[in-house]
This record gives sequence, structure tokens and C-alpha cells, in this order.
Amino acid sequence: MSSKKIKAIDVNCDTGESYGYEKDDDEGLFSIITSANVACGFHAGDPLRMDKTVRLCKDNGVQIGAHPGYPDPMGFGRRDMEITPEEIGLYLLYQWGALEQIARASGMVVKHIKLHGALYNKAARDELLSREIFRLLERIDIDVVLVCPFGSTMYDLAMEYEIRVAGEVYADRAYLRDGSLAPRGTTGAVIADPDKIAERTLEIIRGEIKTLEGFIYKVKADTICIHSDTKGAFGLAEKITKTILEQGISLLPLDKII
Amino acid sequence: MSSKKIKAIDVNCDTGESYGYEKDDDEGLFSIITSANVACGFHAGDPLRMDKTVRLCKDNGVQIGAHPGYPDPMGFGRRDMEITPEEIGLYLLYQWGALEQIARASGMVVKHIKLHGALYNKAARDELLSREIFRLLERIDIDVVLVCPFGSTMYDLAMEYEIRVAGEVYADRAYLRDGSLAPRGTTGAVIADPDKIAERTLEIIRGEIKTLEGFIYKVKADTICIHSDTKGAFGLAEKITKTILEQGISLLPLDKII
Amino acid sequence: MSSKKIKAIDVNCDTGESYGYEKDDDEGLFSIITSANVACGFHAGDPLRMDKTVRLCKDNGVQIGAHPGYPDPMGFGRRDMEITPEEIGLYLLYQWGALEQIARASGMVVKHIKLHGALYNKAARDELLSREIFRLLERIDIDVVLVCPFGSTMYDLAMEYEIRVAGEVYADRAYLRDGSLAPRGTTGAVIADPDKIAERTLEIIRGEIKTLEGFIYKVKADTICIHSDTKGAFGLAEKITKTILEQGISLLPLDKII
Amino acid sequence: MSSKKIKAIDVNCDTGESYGYEKDDDEGLFSIITSANVACGFHAGDPLRMDKTVRLCKDNGVQIGAHPGYPDPMGFGRRDMEITPEEIGLYLLYQWGALEQIARASGMVVKHIKLHGALYNKAARDELLSREIFRLLERIDIDVVLVCPFGSTMYDLAMEYEIRVAGEVYADRAYLRDGSLAPRGTTGAVIADPDKIAERTLEIIRGEIKTLEGFIYKVKADTICIHSDTKGAFGLAEKITKTILEQGISLLPLDKII
Repeated sequence: MSSKKIKAIDVNCDTGESYGYEKDDDEGLFSIITSANVACGFHAGDPLRMDKTVRLCKDNGVQIGAHPGYPDPMGFGRRDMEITPEEIGLYLLYQWGALEQIARASGMVVKHIKLHGALYNKAARDELLSREIFRLLERIDIDVVLVCPFGSTMYDLAMEYEIRVAGEVYADRAYLRDGSLAPRGTTGAVIADPDKIAERTLEIIRGEIKTLEGFIYKVKADTICIHSDTKGAFGLAEKITKTILEQGISLLPLDKII
Repeated sequence: MSSKKIKAIDVNCDTGESYGYEKDDDEGLFSIITSANVACGFHAGDPLRMDKTVRLCKDNGVQIGAHPGYPDPMGFGRRDMEITPEEIGLYLLYQWGALEQIARASGMVVKHIKLHGALYNKAARDELLSREIFRLLERIDIDVVLVCPFGSTMYDLAMEYEIRVAGEVYADRAYLRDGSLAPRGTTGAVIADPDKIAERTLEIIRGEIKTLEGFIYKVKADTICIHSDTKGAFGLAEKITKTILEQGISLLPLDKII
Repeated sequence: MSSKKIKAIDVNCDTGESYGYEKDDDEGLFSIITSANVACGFHAGDPLRMDKTVRLCKDNGVQIGAHPGYPDPMGFGRRDMEITPEEIGLYLLYQWGALEQIARASGMVVKHIKLHGALYNKAARDELLSREIFRLLERIDIDVVLVCPFGSTMYDLAMEYEIRVAGEVYADRAYLRDGSLAPRGTTGAVIADPDKIAERTLEIIRGEIKTLEGFIYKVKADTICIHSDTKGAFGLAEKITKTILEQGISLLPLDKII
Repeated sequence: MSSKKIKAIDVNCDTGESYGYEKDDDEGLFSIITSANVACGFHAGDPLRMDKTVRLCKDNGVQIGAHPGYPDPMGFGRRDMEITPEEIGLYLLYQWGALEQIARASGMVVKHIKLHGALYNKAARDELLSREIFRLLERIDIDVVLVCPFGSTMYDLAMEYEIRVAGEVYADRAYLRDGSLAPRGTTGAVIADPDKIAERTLEIIRGEIKTLEGFIYKVKADTICIHSDTKGAFGLAEKITKTILEQGISLLPLDKII
């Protein structure tokens, strides 16, 4: 865990989160982000949408990642489910493989995996589940980067395994002293002002985030997440990438960083 | 289309067709068949069941095949749907890739693809859909055998493409003069008597099936399908494989034949 | 089939067509329309969204209708499926009953049924399916209006049964001489210009629609459908209702007309 | 909570738990049980199966109950999900209403509700969720009996509300001193011996169950649950009903008891 100045950073976004023939409004973001997390059919995303997102990635030079979630389309994968690590592992393989084959038909490859919603949160703090996923990735032996929250149990444990892990930090959320996100209800928990987003981006680059309480939380971010469903997401995303480039930091997909 | 005596033949069965935590009763068949078609989640089959089926295949030396179907769990994939070839292609990739990754975690590989139910029937006679699937298989460029009805439009067209295709014949169904199956309602359409199954197996081996009308329908079968949900399936399957071996024909998975 | 001037007309819209936690953008339309067709979970619409739509109807004095579709969320119910009339009847009952109970918890009642997408089109021209649905409605014996295309086989047959049927006409689509809609590809098939929408509304009110070929197609519309996903839907809807009211025609929900 | 000798008791069973075109093996039980809990499509059960089960109930004079579960077909509703009471309430209404309408088409009425699997267990001990469900039942105002575990939080709380509640006891599971079921792993947790089932039935009738530790747990059962998926379920069910009748106790559906 170092706070040394970074040379390159990735900007990722959850994409393809519609189902059926609905339109996604996230197409504009593909010209800005470096990595896209593609919903794979369990919480959202059908094969047609997955294919369209893969093509958007290809056309915009964006890295493709699998974004597997709980089998809960009604709850958009945002509700925790009591599922054994073994079954979650199989759900991950299922969704990842599905995207892998669709990407392959376009000459593309899935280069990272980021869990979605409640599953992302559970895995981040659950040692048994984290280890099950690491072992699966070792057994599968396809070169892929696992994205998880910087500083989480999962992030720290990953170092023990021969997998590539990327630490994720949020540009649009306030942190607390212990490294956790300030709950959405708290005043100042969500950062939507472009200038504050820029300031926060600078902090991430420097590796020192000022927490809500005024402390310094040291980070080493490999990737910054942009929420596509935030109002003004496109503008905020532009602000983030502009700030990054102005600091002489390169914008690179995860595969080139980790 | 030759009626020369064959040296080896495959016996395949549709498997893993439950959903949720239901039990499958097809486990016994794995000691008999040479290839298993694994349901991949659209008409039946969830990740847990897929994994169990993969392990059964591994333990019994059975070849693993993807068995993709229409997204119609209520109708078990047996009802036709008006879906464009492009979308069907993506559904095929999705299901195949999902199984591929689950198999990979057990050190196994998907070696064949057989469409399921109404999709199997539609593709067999639909030139546009057949060509879309062939092109996909060429683009994906994973070595795999495509199973389709011997003598169908799909079977004949496949010869134009650089894909490996296997002709399938049914041991438990009567044929008509034009090579189609006698409709289930017709007297004698379904063969359930072990001795008649043995006789039919001999006909398949010789390449000359006597049709319901008394004509000879010439076939060159690469694989014989056993229905696991027929009463006495295990006994019939044993009868088929015993007959095959008694004739000095080898029982081999598709991958070794095509 | 009379072309006598009508005294009241209904304006309906398909609503609640999201799934999971996605936002619907159709809330504004509830202040304009008189009847809402609520997606019931098969092609779109989950219980939470259904409940929200019911409340929107309650707050805006809009009549609630069930909008059952094929069990095809991937295809949004727009692809035909080979399903027996008996099964379709059960799917209709399932979805209608589900909405009925959710509406009841808000003190509301489902007052009409309009089939969705490919099912709407199939039923309109399929006599066997139409009769199956009519018989079901008779057996259920809950007072409800069935919405179907004016002049369709279903519409004409419904007169034989003791059910209430409403003829629907589109304000934003061109008609052909035989009463069918001009295919979307045809020039002029879709009417998006507010002035033309107004003109068409006048034609509907007069009961004489000028077809693409220049003939007169006589109609007696009980309800006009607005597509919520058309660009500028809100403006077009306002234009339609304004035109109706200017002609001294009352805007009334179906239940008050049929 | 009285241990006075009861005059009538109900025997219920979870039914219709297949999906798609699979066969259910529970048809024989309909000649024995007095109440059937019908799966309603979320964890299992499709409209076709629901209709068949309704007809089986009608033909055998069995009372129909809704058996709503979590929207988790992969886990058969046996895994807990973090869902708000409000949403669970809507899921309950959705499933209940769906069955209600299908039953209505056969001239039948849903007379009881029993939650399924993980949802049954959660509601039994969750006061907030219990109250949400009670309020819903009051608002819906259809005469229905709610089945929950005898002695549970939900059971005790129900007395405060103007709803009819039935206490359920298991004939094939051992109880602990505090009224909870002995975990399945424990020696003697599952009772599968016909003689012991008969003995336990007598205890239930007397209202005094001997716990695994040798204590007496006083109960007043309105209904006894039979698991249809236990080996020899039919024989055990016969043993239970025979024992009940030999004691001069009437076998009556819940609606006649509560």
C-alpha cells in the first residue's frame, strides 16, 4: 500500500445494464472511459445488448470486462443473497464465459472482471468467498485482472494468489477515516460538483484522500469508477479524465497497468 | 451420403435438464453414453447442475457438448420463437461460452454443440439460420463438432463450410420415406421394445433404415440419440451399445469420429 | 361498424414497461391519458413497478388495465411464440390476477385488458385464440373490457360473446385500404408531426380515416393508443386530447364508454 | 396456547413445484391431503402446472392455498434474500393474485396462504415483515387463512390482527426444547420411520411433543405438513391420516377449522 505518485490510471464504468429491447443511454461514455464492465445477463444485460456493448468497446478502444452479478433481475443485483461461495463461483464462471464467447466472435477478449452490486460488496469483505474466487481464477488460467475496492479484505488477500488485482477508488463518493464509503444518506456523501470531482481526482492521483472527518486516507488507485446513471455523468467523466491528463498521468486500460 | 459400413459410432443423450435444486434421474446413463449434451440455462440447466453434469462426464469419460435452446423455460425450449438468426447466434454463443468456462474449471473442454428442441428443428431446415451459425463457428474458431439431423438442410449445407458436422439418427423413432421422422401420433412412430431397438441399431449400422412405408432410407450416422426421459431409457441404451459392440463397431465420442 | 359521430373516447398508453430498478420515463403521460395498460411481469414490469404504476393511475384518475404479454423478457414480448391457446389463456389469467391483487391493495380494480406486442397481433387475427380468450373471460366473470384492434377478426368475433370489447385505433400510424397498418418501413407509415396527429385525430373522431392509398377506411374507435416511447410522446398526446376536447368530445376511460 | 384435545386437523403438502414441462410426482398425495400449497411461479410453478394442480385439488376435494416464495428459481426459494418488507408484500400479492385468477377459471378459490422456504422461515421470526403481511391481508380483505409455524413470532403476533392464522407442526421433524426444529444434521432430526411418524402424530393430537432432549413441548396444531419429496411420502402421509382418523379426529381443510 504505497502513496507514491502513479503514472497511469484507468477509468471504468458499468455498462450494458438494460434488458430486452430497452435503450441504454451510456453510449456517449465510451469515448471517455478506458474500461467497461459489461452486465452479463443475471442482474441485467441480455446477449444482444452484450454484443452491442462489445462492439462499442471495440470501436472506441475500450477494454472489456465481465460484470457478473446475483441472479436477481427484479432487484438489479443490489440485494444480498445467501448463496454459498461454490455457487457464486459457478455463477461467475457462467457469466464470464458467456461474455467471453460473445466478445470472441468480435475478435475481442475479456480482460477484467468486476463483480456487481451486492455481490461486489459481499466479496470485498468476505474472506471465504474471496478465496473461492481466487482459486477459480487460478484454475481457469485465463489472463484477467480482478477489480475490487482498494484496501478491502479481498484486495489485501489477493496479493497471496497468483492473480492480477486492481484497486478501485470512487471519484464521486466521500470516504470515511477507515477507508469505507460514507453512507449515501450522510451530508456530502455523494460528490456531483464538477470542481469537487476534479479536486477529488487530484487527491486520488496524489494518493491522499481527505475523509469526511478531515483525516487523510492513503490510497493507490489503479482505476476510478464512474457511475453512468448519475446526472451529468458525461460531464463528470470528462472532468476526471481531463484532470488526469493535465497531471501528466496516462489514461490506460487496466490490462496495461496491472 | 454413403451407406458404407461404419467403424465407430457415438451415442449421445440430452442431460442436465433440471433447474434449481431438482434432482436429475439421468446419472446412470453416463456409464453408457459417449457424449452428453448439457443444457445451458435458457430452456433448462442452471450453473450448479451444469457443473455437476460436467463432473459426471469427467468421471465417466463422456464427451461434453453444449445444448443451447430458446430462452423459454416455461416451454422447455420446445416451442418455436420468431427470433432473428443474428439473435439466435448470440444466444448460442452465450450458452456455449457459459458451459465452456464451467467445464474449463474442471479441466474439461466443450467438444460439440447440439441445438435443443424447437431450435434444433428450426435450424435443421432453415438455410439462413444454418449459415449464420456456421459463420459464427468459423469466427469463434474453437475446434468443435456441430450435431444435426443426418440428411437435413443444415447437414448438407455444413459441408460447404470449414466446420466439423455430425449426422444424428434416432434409434427409438420411425422414419418416413423422405427421411423425416414419423409424427409421434402415427402407429409405430415410437420404438420402445428392446428387440426392435436392437434391430433398428443394426439398420443404422448397416446404413439402411426400413421406413414405416417399407422403403429403405439410406443413412450414415455418426451419432445415435437416446432420450433419457423415455421409460426404460437405461435398458434401451444398454441394448443399443451392446448391439453396436457385438457388431465389432467401436463406441467413440464424436470428437474421435468426425 | 358505424361511422356515426362519437360522443366520448378514451386515450390509452402502455406503461410500467421497465424491469428491476430502472426508471420509467412515462410518468408525465398519466396527467393526459384516461387508461393505462400495465405490464404484468412476463415481457416487462415487476411487482414494484406495477404497484408504482397503480398508484400513478390512482393519483391521476386513470383507469387501470392489464397488459399481458408473452413470457419473453429478452424480446420484450415482440416476437411471436408457438404457444397453444390454452397456455396463452393461462398466461393471461396469471398476469391479470397478479395485477388485480396489487391494484386491490390500493383500493383499485383492473377494468380492462389489452394484450401486448406479438400476442396482441396474433390474437387479433387468430379465431381459435380469440375464442379461447373470450371463453376464459366468460368463465372468470369479472367485469372487464377487452381492447383489440378495431375491425380485426377478434373485434368482430367478440360481438358473439357476452363480453365488452373496445375497438382501438392508432393516431400515429398510417392505415391501408384493408384496415391494416402500413408496415413501418413504408414512407408515411409513422405519423410524428403534431399537425398531422391532430388531423388524424379529427379523422378518427369523424370515423373516416384516409388511407395511404387515398381511400376512406371507416372506423368507430373507442380508444386511441399513444406510444410512450415515441419521441415527443407527451406533446403528441396533448395534441390528441386537445383536439378531442375542442370537438366537444368527452375524454372518458373505457369503462365509462363500453 | 392450549393443549386441549383437538377435534379436527388439516394435513397440507407443498405441490406443483416443477417448472416447464417436467413431471410432478406428487399427484398421488392429493387423495390423502386436505390442503395443497401451490407454487406460484417465483421459486417454482408455471401457469400450466398451477392450473393442473388446481384441477387436481378440485377433483380430490383438496383446499387450494398460495405458496409464494422468493424470486429465485435457481435456488428454489431456499436462500434468504435481503428484500424490504414492502417489496416482499408486493411479491406475495403478485403470486397470490396469479393463482387466484387461475383457480377462479376452474370455479375454485384460494383459501389459504403459506410462504415458501427461506421466506417462510424469515417471516416466522421477523416482526416487521410479519406486520407488513398482516396489514396487506387486512387491506386486501379476501377471506383467507395464513399458515405459519405454531409458536413463532409471526404466529403470536397474528392474534393482534383481524386475520385468520393456522399453526403448523411437522410430523417428520424432531423438535427442541424451545420449540425450534432440530437442525437436519442432528441425529434423529428427521423422522422417516412409519411407526415413529404415527407416534409423533399422536403426540401432535395430544398437544404434547417430546423433544429431542426429552422435554415436553406443548403445541396446538391446526395443520400438519407432509413433505412430498421425502422418500416414501405417500406411505407416511397415509400413516398420518390413518392415525388421525383412528383417534376420532376429523380430517378437515384449514378453512373449516380456523
